[in-house]
Amino acid sequence: MSKKVVTLGEIMLRLSTPDFKRFVQADTFDVTYGGGEANVAVAVSNYGLNGVFVSKVPNNPIGQSAINHLRRYGVDTQFVARGGDRLGIYFLETGASMRASQVVYDRAGASIADVSGSDFDWDKIFDGADWFHTTGITPALSDKAAELTLAALKAARERGITTSIDLNYRKKLWSKEKAQKVMTELCQYVDVCIGNEEDAETTLGFKPANTDITKGELHLDGYKDIIRQMKAKFGFKFIASSLRESYSASDNGWSALVSDGEEFYHTRKYDVRIVDRVGSGDSFASGLIYGLVTGKSMADAAEFGVAASALKHTIPGDLNHATLAEVEALVAGDASGRVQR
Amino acid sequence: MSKKVVTLGEIMLRLSTPDFKRFVQADTFDVTYGGGEANVAVAVSNYGLNGVFVSKVPNNPIGQSAINHLRRYGVDTQFVARGGDRLGIYFLETGASMRASQVVYDRAGASIADVSGSDFDWDKIFDGADWFHTTGITPALSDKAAELTLAALKAARERGITTSIDLNYRKKLWSKEKAQKVMTELCQYVDVCIGNEEDAETTLGFKPANTDITKGELHLDGYKDIIRQMKAKFGFKFIASSLRESYSASDNGWSALVSDGEEFYHTRKYDVRIVDRVGSGDSFASGLIYGLVTGKSMADAAEFGVAASALKHTIPGDLNHATLAEVEALVAGDASGRVQR
Amino acid sequence: MSKKVVTLGEIMLRLSTPDFKRFVQADTFDVTYGGGEANVAVAVSNYGLNGVFVSKVPNNPIGQSAINHLRRYGVDTQFVARGGDRLGIYFLETGASMRASQVVYDRAGASIADVSGSDFDWDKIFDGADWFHTTGITPALSDKAAELTLAALKAARERGITTSIDLNYRKKLWSKEKAQKVMTELCQYVDVCIGNEEDAETTLGFKPANTDITKGELHLDGYKDIIRQMKAKFGFKFIASSLRESYSASDNGWSALVSDGEEFYHTRKYDVRIVDRVGSGDSFASGLIYGLVTGKSMADAAEFGVAASALKHTIPGDLNHATLAEVEALVAGDASGRVQR
Amino acid sequence: MSKKVVTLGEIMLRLSTPDFKRFVQADTFDVTYGGGEANVAVAVSNYGLNGVFVSKVPNNPIGQSAINHLRRYGVDTQFVARGGDRLGIYFLETGASMRASQVVYDRAGASIADVSGSDFDWDKIFDGADWFHTTGITPALSDKAAELTLAALKAARERGITTSIDLNYRKKLWSKEKAQKVMTELCQYVDVCIGNEEDAETTLGFKPANTDITKGELHLDGYKDIIRQMKAKFGFKFIASSLRESYSASDNGWSALVSDGEEFYHTRKYDVRIVDRVGSGDSFASGLIYGLVTGKSMADAAEFGVAASALKHTIPGDLNHATLAEVEALVAGDASGRVQR
Amino acid sequence: MSKKVVTLGEIMLRLSTPDFKRFVQADTFDVTYGGGEANVAVAVSNYGLNGVFVSKVPNNPIGQSAINHLRRYGVDTQFVARGGDRLGIYFLETGASMRASQVVYDRAGASIADVSGSDFDWDKIFDGADWFHTTGITPALSDKAAELTLAALKAARERGITTSIDLNYRKKLWSKEKAQKVMTELCQYVDVCIGNEEDAETTLGFKPANTDITKGELHLDGYKDIIRQMKAKFGFKFIASSLRESYSASDNGWSALVSDGEEFYHTRKYDVRIVDRVGSGDSFASGLIYGLVTGKSMADAAEFGVAASALKHTIPGDLNHATLAEVEALVAGDASGRVQR
Amino acid sequence: MSKKVVTLGEIMLRLSTPDFKRFVQADTFDVTYGGGEANVAVAVSNYGLNGVFVSKVPNNPIGQSAINHLRRYGVDTQFVARGGDRLGIYFLETGASMRASQVVYDRAGASIADVSGSDFDWDKIFDGADWFHTTGITPALSDKAAELTLAALKAARERGITTSIDLNYRKKLWSKEKAQKVMTELCQYVDVCIGNEEDAETTLGFKPANTDITKGELHLDGYKDIIRQMKAKFGFKFIASSLRESYSASDNGWSALVSDGEEFYHTRKYDVRIVDRVGSGDSFASGLIYGLVTGKSMADAAEFGVAASALKHTIPGDLNHATLAEVEALVAGDASGRVQR
Repeated sequence: MSKKVVTLGEIMLRLSTPDFKRFVQADTFDVTYGGGEANVAVAVSNYGLNGVFVSKVPNNPIGQSAINHLRRYGVDTQFVARGGDRLGIYFLETGASMRASQVVYDRAGASIADVSGSDFDWDKIFDGADWFHTTGITPALSDKAAELTLAALKAARERGITTSIDLNYRKKLWSKEKAQKVMTELCQYVDVCIGNEEDAETTLGFKPANTDITKGELHLDGYKDIIRQMKAKFGFKFIASSLRESYSASDNGWSALVSDGEEFYHTRKYDVRIVDRVGSGDSFASGLIYGLVTGKSMADAAEFGVAASALKHTIPGDLNHATLAEVEALVAGDASGRVQR
Repeated sequence: MSKKVVTLGEIMLRLSTPDFKRFVQADTFDVTYGGGEANVAVAVSNYGLNGVFVSKVPNNPIGQSAINHLRRYGVDTQFVARGGDRLGIYFLETGASMRASQVVYDRAGASIADVSGSDFDWDKIFDGADWFHTTGITPALSDKAAELTLAALKAARERGITTSIDLNYRKKLWSKEKAQKVMTELCQYVDVCIGNEEDAETTLGFKPANTDITKGELHLDGYKDIIRQMKAKFGFKFIASSLRESYSASDNGWSALVSDGEEFYHTRKYDVRIVDRVGSGDSFASGLIYGLVTGKSMADAAEFGVAASALKHTIPGDLNHATLAEVEALVAGDASGRVQR
Repeated sequence: MSKKVVTLGEIMLRLSTPDFKRFVQADTFDVTYGGGEANVAVAVSNYGLNGVFVSKVPNNPIGQSAINHLRRYGVDTQFVARGGDRLGIYFLETGASMRASQVVYDRAGASIADVSGSDFDWDKIFDGADWFHTTGITPALSDKAAELTLAALKAARERGITTSIDLNYRKKLWSKEKAQKVMTELCQYVDVCIGNEEDAETTLGFKPANTDITKGELHLDGYKDIIRQMKAKFGFKFIASSLRESYSASDNGWSALVSDGEEFYHTRKYDVRIVDRVGSGDSFASGLIYGLVTGKSMADAAEFGVAASALKHTIPGDLNHATLAEVEALVAGDASGRVQR
Repeated sequence: MSKKVVTLGEIMLRLSTPDFKRFVQADTFDVTYGGGEANVAVAVSNYGLNGVFVSKVPNNPIGQSAINHLRRYGVDTQFVARGGDRLGIYFLETGASMRASQVVYDRAGASIADVSGSDFDWDKIFDGADWFHTTGITPALSDKAAELTLAALKAARERGITTSIDLNYRKKLWSKEKAQKVMTELCQYVDVCIGNEEDAETTLGFKPANTDITKGELHLDGYKDIIRQMKAKFGFKFIASSLRESYSASDNGWSALVSDGEEFYHTRKYDVRIVDRVGSGDSFASGLIYGLVTGKSMADAAEFGVAASALKHTIPGDLNHATLAEVEALVAGDASGRVQR
Repeated sequence: MSKKVVTLGEIMLRLSTPDFKRFVQADTFDVTYGGGEANVAVAVSNYGLNGVFVSKVPNNPIGQSAINHLRRYGVDTQFVARGGDRLGIYFLETGASMRASQVVYDRAGASIADVSGSDFDWDKIFDGADWFHTTGITPALSDKAAELTLAALKAARERGITTSIDLNYRKKLWSKEKAQKVMTELCQYVDVCIGNEEDAETTLGFKPANTDITKGELHLDGYKDIIRQMKAKFGFKFIASSLRESYSASDNGWSALVSDGEEFYHTRKYDVRIVDRVGSGDSFASGLIYGLVTGKSMADAAEFGVAASALKHTIPGDLNHATLAEVEALVAGDASGRVQR
Repeated sequence: MSKKVVTLGEIMLRLSTPDFKRFVQADTFDVTYGGGEANVAVAVSNYGLNGVFVSKVPNNPIGQSAINHLRRYGVDTQFVARGGDRLGIYFLETGASMRASQVVYDRAGASIADVSGSDFDWDKIFDGADWFHTTGITPALSDKAAELTLAALKAARERGITTSIDLNYRKKLWSKEKAQKVMTELCQYVDVCIGNEEDAETTLGFKPANTDITKGELHLDGYKDIIRQMKAKFGFKFIASSLRESYSASDNGWSALVSDGEEFYHTRKYDVRIVDRVGSGDSFASGLIYGLVTGKSMADAAEFGVAASALKHTIPGDLNHATLAEVEALVAGDASGRVQR
């Protein structure tokens, strides 16, 4: 029986320009659907787990298309509520070289922000579940969404389900102060915390050591210190983060750090030629969750996660369509890219 | 010196599925920009007039792209204000045969709804202007937008500029009661009123005679009676409407009725094979305005308008790219569609 | 609780040329997936029933993509077996006017032809099922597939599940003699038989009256006589057929005849402007099944089926994405194709 | 041994807007290659004859691509000379309904206009040839091209090869006076003359009877009279013309008239739904030539030609990709457009 | 009040193959419009200046589309003359790795080559202008175009407007001898001269030091010596050039050298991953002009120009759509390519 | 008179996903045609030789399209037999970075596997031929295909035509044992053997030295030893292989080794940025054959081959469209990728 992983969050319509075009040049948009928690539900389903996505979408063809996109990739969408006004949208322009990718969010007023607890029956949703995952984006969407996130985490904790959160601070959604207030409460019900040094500061108020993220440097000492603080305060079982070295919009270094608060494990680093880096953090989280929920060690789970997300960088769209076999082959060391016939 | 026509309203991002695909099938959207009043500004510019569009768009690349789309077709966009949260969006699925085209609006929270009078300097905008046009959609967007519309109509009237409005009732934006209250006030400042029998009822409360619009029938007696009532109440110089006989989503009959409240003129009727019928009402309004502002008779202006909008049905997108020469040739009677070499 | 409809058959990769291109001109193919029984599973799911598709696809990404295509549209694919060599393919060139659409089949050696009874657990598949549907294509694929079809029909009959078959003779798959031998046995376990006069002759050996199908004429007397013979021999509850008048590749007349062997009901006729007529027969079957399984009368079920399949002609791909509301509106009489806003 | 048909003329790069877009909307062009005589060479090759195209193209990748396009469809291009400055271009916007298709020519300075007799070895080119075809466009391109056309017609005549010309007056290339001077000389060496009443007047000076081509009417009496005059003056074996009734840019009536100067044969008329009508005249010529060179009667050749060209209207691009079997089936009467499986 | 920059030159239709296809593979072309001076007008408009483009285009839809393309990006096109025969075209095939991009010019007979002084009213054009820019391509197009260029430079100089020229030698347009004769005269009226060592030799006859441009080496001593000679002969205020190190068609080094004839400033060097390098020289010129006309120092203007043009390499098309903020951020040092949310 | 090179093998329909999409994401496929020996026929035709391709394709539009694709690029296809059931297909997903390209073969039952000797007349095919080439794929397709390959090699040898084979082991087509049995016999009639160390082992049973191909290392000592063994056993005139160092799916090192059994020549190595690496081995073979058949030395032929195939990596599709001039320029040392105007 495959493990059941439930995620809660927003799914958005993603509109991206093709062929490195800028927004002002575009006469068509490529259409996909994604969002942090939806991306995780797809990826774990893709590895053979029972991925369940919980959200709310409008009762119109755009909402239906979002659901269809997840169903296409094997996600159980039966608990997605219908209602509200609109599906959130994000516009994406893929960068290259020194030109950064650009995201324009248009998510205000989305159905998920107008959610109510009565939209969901946690008993059914969590029946047989092994893992619950959400991110710091969901509570940032609205007070109602924050309440829902809290209720979901509590409901999972009560049922003995492992919980994880990806801190994911979004400065356009809320202030640091608001974030810290809400996230600090939520993290009391969290087992596995994913987030880098910067997110730990913005959403939980931990004081970072010197890191200048725009330089793509990796001074991990400060981050390790913060991890110890996080462990002390919240008692997380695991704390993890992907580590990006952004050489340019076309090439990145990619690895991850994972810790149980005492031991630290820094994975292999991949130098990736980027096709589409949106969703790579989610693909790391998915891989880590897959590893942990299927019984891998902390280190092996992190290696699985970082290999999975390295592959994600080569796939267009938010979703990670790398197969279990492909991730395992990369973990085993074959990064040669030879044609598979 | 070419005539100056100012229009005020919303411009939206239009996302349409290609090749008769339904929303749930689409993996790309065709991207254009349009809206009732923007469409008029483009069309009159296309005929050689000085078209000026007044609106408000967000200060982001999507707003910029909307402006660029109008500039491309010769519209003066210098008075478009920047600010607010988002550009309104509408999704379009083009129908065929008995499957109707479907529009999903996502326009709540658009920048134009959050407009203020101080965003615009009517002295500059109306300097040298000959005509001002808006529609019943603009005041429906928000109370602020309704106030702005009223202010604009008053400002135009004060300067002796001819004013026109296309009634265009949108039931998802406001109730009939609200519409009638607002539109009745606005119409005091209007010279030329465009709108069919149904719009006259919903937005102005005139009692229609028997018309079942879904049957595509044309019983004009009731409408003529309403026109006389409209003349009596508001003193409009001209009242006009395009007349659609919807045989199917692929084929329509298309003509127009125009009146000065006493005389009635029913134009030639075109049977059109439809490529894209969105914006055809606006293209009729544009043609009528072009005719009237350049001194044509009521009947000739209506023939120009209906020929222009017949051609619009054959052009993808909201905008009418038929040239002045093409419209005139059609008015003159050549509908053979022979290749022009 | 929504009704459960199980279908058994082949799903193929459909490769079609875009924009009326001929095969020799094509540099891209549009990619979808379909097949008679899969199309029915999608359509009934689309109307809110629980559609289950049973088949066998190769254990490679092309097979996975076929499954994903069905999941996207809500079909339960858990019982699709994996194995065998390849997914069947069909190439489609869409015609226009007097140029017929052309289909090139490349389905030999498909996984479904190499199927074995042990691939499926009928107890699980038919648990709670209300209807079982297949076509005359499935038993034509191979002897193994014919055996499987027989086993499925028997299993359904044993469980009191209503069974239906669409006769669908494919001359490239088997001879009339072989077809008649196999189909005559299968039809003993069938409740609802769908097929026109020509299919009744080729697959069951009933002698047709004068019908020249290439002329698009509808002389129904001969067909009615055959229906009575079919009733007498097999005891079908209902016998039905869509009726096509092929004016050209662009325009068809479309109606249906249904009978319980005594009464005959000829539906409203639609004149359809064709976008894609492949799968229209399946969409009629789906609509008929939907009507019957949800308790409509024979006549109402046929009207639902013919309206559904009229709409299908306007939608690209094999699948019918017309919604329940749209079909019901068309049945209720609105074929005007007015824009739905 | 299949018949050898040699054609001489220009091949152009054709740039057309997709999806009914107007030029001002286009961000991509569809790329094909064609021209009156090249189109004939392709079509006769397509029917199994040995089609040879003689022309001159620039020695650059655009010229090479034009050659490749013809080779792709089986034309022998070994006698195409390389040199000169550029390949002629024509831009095409496909119309619909009352909006006519529009062609913008950009052919000045094309390599074929700068041709010299020494570029070609008529002994080799005409070795074993059965037919030579050209059009009134080629001599209109330049004096050099006119000289070449004359030389080719003479060389063919000397070798006993049947010659044909399609009059095809292009008013942007030369005046009526110039045309009549040149064409009158050329026609002395022509056996089969293709051209309608209007072309007969513009290029050969015959006085037409009342025909108003923009009305799509067919008053054939005047044309028949002209045919008799043409026979008398030039002794043509056959004179033929397709006959278009242009209801709109979307729908045309299509038939043909052929005569030996005494008997007149008016073919079946097809009502065609148009996909792309450019090249339909050439496809009629090709079909007529195919018929005559393979020994059909005048009437049968004309029926073949008009069926072939009716099918051409349904195929995008200049070239007729209808197969021999398809044309013959249409001649035999099947215009039902039923799917060919 | 924003600065007014006038440019004079040719605008061409650019037809490029998508997705690294070679010309012989292409079935579509991407359509944009560009040309050295038009590119500069767009870029400076993009930075907020008042960019005015002066040219001549044919009075047909292709010419109109070129104008529309510039208007879309904010350029004032009111002084573009209409007339002549055709718009120049260039075909582009984008290379990769060791396969070079290939350009096929088809610009003979373009409208701009058939220009006359009376087409333009310099008083109006230069009213309020701050800068005038052209390139060595314009005078190479024809003697008339050379006369016009001279007239424009003189007119600008008379009005105290700063003038700049990009030497840009095109060997297919004229000989070195002709170029040197014409350019030497033009340069008497130039303030800012842009061009590398090779252009300085071909168009002005300065003797270069050892530079082998195909090796991508940068031995600047010879170039510096030439700059001093240029200063001495023409008294240029500034002399500048971008400096390309062509590692391959996919990766280049990119920097610039600027001098007032005494001081030399070599900018930061960027290693760029190339999306489209056509127009990068123009984007450097635009950035330099922007910098100088808004009062930056020589060094800061060059850094702005080189950052702007580094970004151009990542944008498809001739035009630089990098925003002012993006260029300034890159100058400030952020080349990490991190996603901008 | 250009040299005549005959190749024998399969041509397949190639269906590839665009824009780095994975199979499960694709809604369109790019359509080309290719196969080892067809690719060689195209490439040598492209260099000006007379390339003749011998194969068998189904008598349907897909088979015709394959032939057309080769004709387009100048290949003589007159000896391609028609018949059998289907054209083999391969699906391709282009990888990037550490994600390998993936090929799914669907070639069982292809027409070429059902070939018979009587389909071909070797006297005509080899009339005037200088070279015959095939690969180890052809005999692996079926016993009939193996017999045909043997017959062709013998027929060529009898006529004094130089023969070459590319070993190309395909593990999904046959076992090593079967391969060695068949290939050992075939190689008795081969003059030039192309294949790397691994192929030499799998198809001919030579014992390799330590090479771990997934690491992209080049330890050539073992391979050189094998080459000496191959020479000793079969007396090949030349033995050659391309040498790939697979850094990733995006970047490879590329060189070649050639030997006459005594001397070894290792070519220049290119670091290639990959657009499409499928067919690069064939393009090396083509270049080597071109070099040898036109009289180049072993070393020069290998340099030509490796330069040609380096360029192939930058071109989409199986076929090498690099021109003779481009290959020669790269051999001469210009790999700068500067724009060619």
